[in-house]
Amino acid sequence: MKWLLGIDIGGTTVKMAVLDMNGIISDKWEITTDIRENGVHIPTDIAASFEAYLETSGKAKQDFAGAGIGAPGFINFSEGVVEYSPNIGWKNFALVSEFEKAVGLPAVLENDANAAALGEMWKGAGEGASELLAITLGTGVGGGVITNGNIVHGAAGMAGEIGHITVERDESKAVMCGCGRKGCIETIASATGIARLALQKRKGRTTSLNELNEVTARDVFEAYKANDVVATEVVNEMTEYLGLTISNIANTLNPKMIVIGGGVSKAREALLEPLDEQFKRFALERVYASTAFKIAELENDAGVIGCAWLARKHFIPTRV
Amino acid sequence: MKWLLGIDIGGTTVKMAVLDMNGIISDKWEITTDIRENGVHIPTDIAASFEAYLETSGKAKQDFAGAGIGAPGFINFSEGVVEYSPNIGWKNFALVSEFEKAVGLPAVLENDANAAALGEMWKGAGEGASELLAITLGTGVGGGVITNGNIVHGAAGMAGEIGHITVERDESKAVMCGCGRKGCIETIASATGIARLALQKRKGRTTSLNELNEVTARDVFEAYKANDVVATEVVNEMTEYLGLTISNIANTLNPKMIVIGGGVSKAREALLEPLDEQFKRFALERVYASTAFKIAELENDAGVIGCAWLARKHFIPTRV
Repeated sequence: MKWLLGIDIGGTTVKMAVLDMNGIISDKWEITTDIRENGVHIPTDIAASFEAYLETSGKAKQDFAGAGIGAPGFINFSEGVVEYSPNIGWKNFALVSEFEKAVGLPAVLENDANAAALGEMWKGAGEGASELLAITLGTGVGGGVITNGNIVHGAAGMAGEIGHITVERDESKAVMCGCGRKGCIETIASATGIARLALQKRKGRTTSLNELNEVTARDVFEAYKANDVVATEVVNEMTEYLGLTISNIANTLNPKMIVIGGGVSKAREALLEPLDEQFKRFALERVYASTAFKIAELENDAGVIGCAWLARKHFIPTRV
Repeated sequence: MKWLLGIDIGGTTVKMAVLDMNGIISDKWEITTDIRENGVHIPTDIAASFEAYLETSGKAKQDFAGAGIGAPGFINFSEGVVEYSPNIGWKNFALVSEFEKAVGLPAVLENDANAAALGEMWKGAGEGASELLAITLGTGVGGGVITNGNIVHGAAGMAGEIGHITVERDESKAVMCGCGRKGCIETIASATGIARLALQKRKGRTTSLNELNEVTARDVFEAYKANDVVATEVVNEMTEYLGLTISNIANTLNPKMIVIGGGVSKAREALLEPLDEQFKRFALERVYASTAFKIAELENDAGVIGCAWLARKHFIPTRV
């Protein structure tokens, strides 16, 4: 019985966890991400924290099969290099070799969003489904695509960039996206997009949203649950565009499970019910019938669990 | 050195080919598809034709590693059963076991469009790319998705149904599709859709398309090459919608190669050039930069070659 080390590196904290082969977390903790000098100290910070853990826990390094690392940014998976990570400052940073040198465990690298998708597949809402689409509705809209049980990276690691699917081509309605083009689903279905729609629609209307100064996606869903007319318009518009996007992806990939996470997913049924209606409207009948929606379950643990899954897959020989 | 048998079953003919391990066709031929009694005779017809081939060629059955079969319709891949194939008449037909019983070779079953995609991946325009999107522009619009070197089937074998991606939601423009919904890309980018657009746009206009009684997609591309104004409008509209669709899929999967086949693809550069412009317009820059378009190369051989690839993959043990 070997242990797995899961490391989820974010712009603010590095989440660390020790898991068994079944994905059960034995211990978890976090350290601050030291972004000074373009993140050069991160591998040795992780190593120091791991050594301290070994001492207090009584576990031995040789009882670990390896580590999985999730990191934000553009990644060269085969080389184990982070090509560019604006939040941390890495540019062509050889994370895997730096980590292996500092920590003394073999490591495998994945994009943080993909790692979270694998976590949900293994121990969360994905229920082991080998055909899975993970969607994160946060400040932006992100995605992770799993087919035949594996993450899809694509030709240049760009698979899963579903936030930049174009859904609005009407120049009078399309809004500029951070990517430089107009009408991306991210401009509508992200927390930011929902708030923007609400600010636009509340003007001169009778709505509880006018009692607030700032409006958040959470405010919109609260007002929607109380049958506020303007909030209902916003949720209907957002779920229509998002439902269309998901249907088009589902006609292409026919996922068994669509797992929705991120801040906006906290609206739960208020999001899923109208979304399911739109999915039924736009997807092929056999696609609709074979796909289930669920809210992500693992929250902040999804990343470390997915990283542990990767470590198990890469460093534990399977019986042939 | 073992031989591979590739069988591509269509509504009119069954294409058969014997290939070596490198995908080189040694011999190919076809027999008529006997659709009487809901296609029950097809496995024994194939067996008789194969036995006749063995006799004349001098090859022995034990020198064959196995067979790959491509068939149209909805397929249960793990069971080797064709659930429903309207063109042939099969309903819950246990094709793999019937084939194995009649022919005496182990077999693996795939959807015909997916088999063609695998053929292009192995020996055609795909150039071995393990991330590939195959698009067929014929009477309808079909697709085959390859990620990490394998076909994506999805939860219910419905992956690749890209013809039913919704691209037009304006009720005044959206046209009814065979699937029962409106505005699918198939209503615009198929040979049928292109002809429909041309008939609609030529009315009362000065165009060479008015010299014809019936208009085909081929006529439209011929007129487009001669700078006909109406044909140019049709091609621009068709490639704008198709380019949008492909961009949205590419932002999700980041394929290395997009291979376009089917009758409409015979327009070659007249199709690819405007399509590439629209792809550049709608896809993320890094996605556009990492993806190449090509016209399918194998024509009618794509299916049998893809079937042989499947047979090799399933029946030749890989060295561990």
